[in-house]
Amino acid sequence: MPTVEARLRVRYAETDQMGIVYYANYLVWMELGRAEYCRAAGVRYTDMERDDGILLAVAEAHCRYASPALYDEEVVVATRVLESNPRMVRFGYQMREAGSGRAIASGETKHIYLGPDRKPRKIPEKYRALFRAED
Amino acid sequence: MPTVEARLRVRYAETDQMGIVYYANYLVWMELGRAEYCRAAGVRYTDMERDDGILLAVAEAHCRYASPALYDEEVVVATRVLESNPRMVRFGYQMREAGSGRAIASGETKHIYLGPDRKPRKIPEKYRALFRAED
Amino acid sequence: MPTVEARLRVRYAETDQMGIVYYANYLVWMELGRAEYCRAAGVRYTDMERDDGILLAVAEAHCRYASPALYDEEVVVATRVLESNPRMVRFGYQMREAGSGRAIASGETKHIYLGPDRKPRKIPEKYRALFRAED
Amino acid sequence: MPTVEARLRVRYAETDQMGIVYYANYLVWMELGRAEYCRAAGVRYTDMERDDGILLAVAEAHCRYASPALYDEEVVVATRVLESNPRMVRFGYQMREAGSGRAIASGETKHIYLGPDRKPRKIPEKYRALFRAED
Repeated sequence: MPTVEARLRVRYAETDQMGIVYYANYLVWMELGRAEYCRAAGVRYTDMERDDGILLAVAEAHCRYASPALYDEEVVVATRVLESNPRMVRFGYQMREAGSGRAIASGETKHIYLGPDRKPRKIPEKYRALFRAED
Repeated sequence: MPTVEARLRVRYAETDQMGIVYYANYLVWMELGRAEYCRAAGVRYTDMERDDGILLAVAEAHCRYASPALYDEEVVVATRVLESNPRMVRFGYQMREAGSGRAIASGETKHIYLGPDRKPRKIPEKYRALFRAED
Repeated sequence: MPTVEARLRVRYAETDQMGIVYYANYLVWMELGRAEYCRAAGVRYTDMERDDGILLAVAEAHCRYASPALYDEEVVVATRVLESNPRMVRFGYQMREAGSGRAIASGETKHIYLGPDRKPRKIPEKYRALFRAED
Repeated sequence: MPTVEARLRVRYAETDQMGIVYYANYLVWMELGRAEYCRAAGVRYTDMERDDGILLAVAEAHCRYASPALYDEEVVVATRVLESNPRMVRFGYQMREAGSGRAIASGETKHIYLGPDRKPRKIPEKYRALFRAED
């Protein structure tokens, strides 16, 4: 799977009184990146959750802030798989302002698969290709 | 049931670039008011949801903004029941700055009861006293 | 100005444990509708704020919830001006699921114009055409 | 400065359709921890921002998720300074369920000081004691 891009426009609700995007919202954008990555791979995350009871639980998240995103800016979130095995997947994200390419933030999230009982389990065979790390 | 007060302190995340609390967040505070109202009446909302599968679905919400709340201010949300019957309940809220009593916002929410099938149903007998409207 | 449509996809962050979109988030979507309305009229809301110090302060918000939006659904927010004069503007919103046209919610917001001193003022002449109510 | 504790109760708005707190919200809780830390040290963060134009810009954030927080649970956020110098400060956080002490999440944030021009600067002398790292 190559890198997959998601696009979003900064919402007023996402800014704070510093006049920039509040720092927790970049993690919301990473989620949009992940969802787009899955969609591009032909799997709706929600189907995995509903049809197979597989939950993608976040184990770790990390974000480095380069330059703040501002209201109404268009942001590109480029998402790729950094590491993957039947028990976990680690995504990497690059966030840039769409017009100028200005680096906004970068980050990583690590997820483990949970079954309907909320206990760790291996991801079903049919989804494994989805989260294969880039070579 | 008398009016029940909940207290909260304005979070940085709740502000926007206008330097005030973003307007949708007052609805979150109304939720805190409702939860506190239930707690004061001896019922945890979450128990109603888990034990009896009763969901309190919002049908309508209304907010009038008087003066903006600012970061770090302490806010009192005074909640009472305006109308109640076995199929619905309507709450009223007054939000004030704790120290000065300055009016921040007021609002109302109307809710209907849903069963585990997500269809309207009457609230079980045991919860009816909880949402009895003030005389 | 005709009705202007904005499109969005429901974010995981916007859902709550009831499995549906949390009720305050519809007000965030109304904001996206307003922003798109302004953009379609050739004005970036942010320019009005930065260049002329005009703030569009929310005075009132109202939402009626028809059927809950679900994760990953595409939502269309149709926005129009219901009422407008040099001191205020009132927007109306219809939110529908993009594919089926299913009604999700409808609402209204009323705004007054504030100057850099945060006091009510008339909107500058150049912006008046922007918020002219539909005939 | 010893470790400072902040307390909060999980809001319905903070949950997602997995029935647990959405992962970005733990960063909001870290912010509550930081604010409480400052308050305990006799400084309101907002005063630093308003009176001296000093902004505490987030440069990096990291969160490890141990067990999900649930609606209505009471959470203790224990905050301390891990590293500090005139140009930056690094906070560490431990989040636990108040009753049982169950570990929920832990994290770190690194901040740099910005002046009114949004450029890095040294923190004024009077605030330095505030963010002195624990020995």
